[in-house]
Amino acid sequence: MTMKIGFIGLGAMGLPMSSNLQRKGFAVTVFDIDDAKMSKVAELGAAKAASVAEASRGQDIVITVLPATQHVEAVVLGEDGVLANIDAGGLLMDLSTIDAKGTDRVAAACAAKGISFVDAPIGRLAMHAERGESLFMVGAEDADFARVEPALNAMGTDIFRCGHPGMGSRMKVINNFMLLSTAQIVAESLALGTKLGLDIQTMHDVTGATTARNGQFHVLMANKVLKGDIEPGFTIDLAFKDLSLAMNAAAENRVGLPMGAAAHAVFGGARATKYASKDYSALLNHACDNAGVETPKME
Amino acid sequence: MTMKIGFIGLGAMGLPMSSNLQRKGFAVTVFDIDDAKMSKVAELGAAKAASVAEASRGQDIVITVLPATQHVEAVVLGEDGVLANIDAGGLLMDLSTIDAKGTDRVAAACAAKGISFVDAPIGRLAMHAERGESLFMVGAEDADFARVEPALNAMGTDIFRCGHPGMGSRMKVINNFMLLSTAQIVAESLALGTKLGLDIQTMHDVTGATTARNGQFHVLMANKVLKGDIEPGFTIDLAFKDLSLAMNAAAENRVGLPMGAAAHAVFGGARATKYASKDYSALLNHACDNAGVETPKME
Amino acid sequence: MTMKIGFIGLGAMGLPMSSNLQRKGFAVTVFDIDDAKMSKVAELGAAKAASVAEASRGQDIVITVLPATQHVEAVVLGEDGVLANIDAGGLLMDLSTIDAKGTDRVAAACAAKGISFVDAPIGRLAMHAERGESLFMVGAEDADFARVEPALNAMGTDIFRCGHPGMGSRMKVINNFMLLSTAQIVAESLALGTKLGLDIQTMHDVTGATTARNGQFHVLMANKVLKGDIEPGFTIDLAFKDLSLAMNAAAENRVGLPMGAAAHAVFGGARATKYASKDYSALLNHACDNAGVETPKME
Amino acid sequence: MTMKIGFIGLGAMGLPMSSNLQRKGFAVTVFDIDDAKMSKVAELGAAKAASVAEASRGQDIVITVLPATQHVEAVVLGEDGVLANIDAGGLLMDLSTIDAKGTDRVAAACAAKGISFVDAPIGRLAMHAERGESLFMVGAEDADFARVEPALNAMGTDIFRCGHPGMGSRMKVINNFMLLSTAQIVAESLALGTKLGLDIQTMHDVTGATTARNGQFHVLMANKVLKGDIEPGFTIDLAFKDLSLAMNAAAENRVGLPMGAAAHAVFGGARATKYASKDYSALLNHACDNAGVETPKME
Repeated sequence: MTMKIGFIGLGAMGLPMSSNLQRKGFAVTVFDIDDAKMSKVAELGAAKAASVAEASRGQDIVITVLPATQHVEAVVLGEDGVLANIDAGGLLMDLSTIDAKGTDRVAAACAAKGISFVDAPIGRLAMHAERGESLFMVGAEDADFARVEPALNAMGTDIFRCGHPGMGSRMKVINNFMLLSTAQIVAESLALGTKLGLDIQTMHDVTGATTARNGQFHVLMANKVLKGDIEPGFTIDLAFKDLSLAMNAAAENRVGLPMGAAAHAVFGGARATKYASKDYSALLNHACDNAGVETPKME
Repeated sequence: MTMKIGFIGLGAMGLPMSSNLQRKGFAVTVFDIDDAKMSKVAELGAAKAASVAEASRGQDIVITVLPATQHVEAVVLGEDGVLANIDAGGLLMDLSTIDAKGTDRVAAACAAKGISFVDAPIGRLAMHAERGESLFMVGAEDADFARVEPALNAMGTDIFRCGHPGMGSRMKVINNFMLLSTAQIVAESLALGTKLGLDIQTMHDVTGATTARNGQFHVLMANKVLKGDIEPGFTIDLAFKDLSLAMNAAAENRVGLPMGAAAHAVFGGARATKYASKDYSALLNHACDNAGVETPKME
Repeated sequence: MTMKIGFIGLGAMGLPMSSNLQRKGFAVTVFDIDDAKMSKVAELGAAKAASVAEASRGQDIVITVLPATQHVEAVVLGEDGVLANIDAGGLLMDLSTIDAKGTDRVAAACAAKGISFVDAPIGRLAMHAERGESLFMVGAEDADFARVEPALNAMGTDIFRCGHPGMGSRMKVINNFMLLSTAQIVAESLALGTKLGLDIQTMHDVTGATTARNGQFHVLMANKVLKGDIEPGFTIDLAFKDLSLAMNAAAENRVGLPMGAAAHAVFGGARATKYASKDYSALLNHACDNAGVETPKME
Repeated sequence: MTMKIGFIGLGAMGLPMSSNLQRKGFAVTVFDIDDAKMSKVAELGAAKAASVAEASRGQDIVITVLPATQHVEAVVLGEDGVLANIDAGGLLMDLSTIDAKGTDRVAAACAAKGISFVDAPIGRLAMHAERGESLFMVGAEDADFARVEPALNAMGTDIFRCGHPGMGSRMKVINNFMLLSTAQIVAESLALGTKLGLDIQTMHDVTGATTARNGQFHVLMANKVLKGDIEPGFTIDLAFKDLSLAMNAAAENRVGLPMGAAAHAVFGGARATKYASKDYSALLNHACDNAGVETPKME
């Protein structure tokens, strides 16, 4: 029997993901405040809902992909929101990257109503979502995971279970803290190396052959800023938001993050520059500007 | 015709490297202040020299591997040192990790005497040196590189040319700055993640599948601290020395390194703890101690 | 004619301040969830209110002094809160230290109802409040300032006008950012100086005679931690909250604060230690512990 | 009997100081590589020496004021330097700001030759030196202090004894670490406050009335950058040198300085800007540039 999915939020991630679900045989009902986006998925056979409420009723699973904590809380917990309309025995899966405490509040509200809840924030970028190659960090009870697994497999290739509800959000915070902070380390290293006269290809190859190797230099930057491309991707503004989630989690848990704090300050300062809405790999441009050297490029 | 090599400095790197050269058919003359170490290479057929001077005379190549800038300057530039004794037309290759300005001074002194100079600092650890699997970052003129290449191939598997003399030293500084700073990012990430309740294997696997992947977590720590092993390897004290080289290079070149500075401060503080002479992957223990969580381990 | 004041929140600041108002001839009606505290002011002649609503009705001025943004918003904007009960033509003065955005929301809600609003966060400590020697940073329109000035003069000695409503909150954030970050600079300086063998009295006297002179060393620490007293005062936990207000303001305004971030990380880490609920001058103990020296004391 | 003083180094400090000594009745013999500077003091009656050696012989006290560690070591310890020429029973007093380890080496060399040594680095600026209002941080044995006290009183008004030889240097490092790091805290605070719309005079007055008060804002910046004057004074480049002395001292003593490191990075970055050779109060311009606000001025 065809699984029915209500899908709320058709942004850079939600649009390709809901499309893939529809293409792969799920019965998808979409909702977004932008009707043009709904029409794109409708062309593939999906139904359009007129409201969050309509998208939430009569579904096996309701999926949300929204920008930030306050949007998820408004859509799920708000008057005439998902929780007010989802069927008894229903399941809500939130793919948004939000504050873990926000995830906990949503999970608690679901539990109080007897609704199953899964958090499954997305790793990787929009281009991977389009190819159905997303990575998901899943917080779910066993039985609930079994229910969402087919949908996750339709949208992605790498499904990681991270523990009970809420742990997907936490894993996402840690993952992005690690990669974003590393990006700035790479930016500083390359700015200094360039000022010392080292060739970018040499730096790329040597560090690629030692334990200095990392995905920010050898995957991300090699394909973006080092090719002269700083169109997002993932903006410095959004990256700053993600780093802020880590700083908040650290504050709540009484952990000091000396390098995280330095990274947060650098991203914060970069937001006052022309790179604020560029790909965060433009941290390299920012570091090279500050160092007074030209940003290196690789052929 | 057998190539004659004078080899000065039989520490953790010099001992296995000189041994490999002797085994692979070079005529090696060793010198070290520790006679027992010389004897180990002599058992393989090498000659023992009684002094730096004796090890420097009559060689095709003189190789130095010494702890720090002042040792290299003393051994090479000092009275009755390498430069005072090396044959006309000789070549000095320094494998030490030292200040780039120190390398420049040695290179300039060689040039003034018509002696060829190559700097080729070592990537990787003593265990790789023993297996002849070292990585070298080579600063050399073309003709000089041709002369040292056979010896480098006898000691290592990855030989990277980085430019003219002095650029090997600079590449080493950048490489270690990048990896050591990244190590602390990983330490902070895992300390926070652990405090948030995430399983170490989950963090390992998820970050390994995104651009958060890096050699410090997925190669170094996975094989050291996360297995409960913090015996060096490479100590926090030595790592601090390497970070200091980067900070000095940044100072000389008018570059600010906000995260490098934070890393330098953390390593500096870790040197006041019981981890000072432990493997630098023990940054994780230090971060977890500070955060009040137990250091995670992977099976 | 006696001015009538509703006073909500009888914490470390509110209790002595409302007492001073009552002593100095204002007709005070107090409200707090802790009846014992209300009784203390009632002994001086103040009236007790049974609710926020009761304390808000029939007053010339309603004053709030509450711990954090969410408390102010709940008490002022909540159902049956101050705004729902305050008389037409009334004036609300908030003395709390809260997020400037929170102040702006309260100010906007007041404006929408035609209620005058003044923000006047408190400088200095509880002991000054008891002596009627508080400092106030006042955001107010001219006419409103004239209305609150007698009350402010009854509670404090230094009344600074900082601009329109909201600017008092902003001034408080900057003031505490500057002093708290400076405290950690002093802690680092004294920890290093002590490790170098310098006498604390010498450091005190010399820096007191140069532009190194600052209130954190020469007023705060000289009277607290350097006398061996780390009972709050103002705790590291509260100080961290205030630093967080600055970091949030910086984030909202696209400003990077490299040293502020480092301070925030240090305070954040100190919160995982036994000093979390001690006076923030205990940053010196924390720095000395980390440096492996005994905390210095002055006689 | 007139005290004879050999005075070596007639820079921004040495010139006015030697002039004051000559004016106040000491028999001064000066040496500097710049003859024009010697002539200025000679016009007051001082003798010119043709060399360090000549300035060192036949004096009661030899005073050195030189830019950095290497200059002091060269002039004092070098061939035909002070130590090779100073009379038996002589006394050397170094007023330079140098690395404490350098001071220790000079002190040890003096001790080995039976020469008394005093280190007395200078607090305050050239304009104070001209008025004979310098501050000295003195490391000296009691008997030696008695010998130099009249000369110190001729040059300055505030003479602080800091302990045995070497402790003057250490006190200077701590003093300047504290004030330079505080300067950047002030710069960040004012940049953020300005972006929040606060008036500079308000920030000045309010923080001046709380424990936020500090010499960097209320003395230094109030008289320099906030008046639109960033001519040195004391350049960012020199300030960076002094901060580096603190970072080196911390490294040698296994102390981590999280905020010191952040300050060092900021000063390091500022050296790549147009402010490198401006007064270090121009940190405020740098912070405001980064924050995208105009640098505030006070009338």
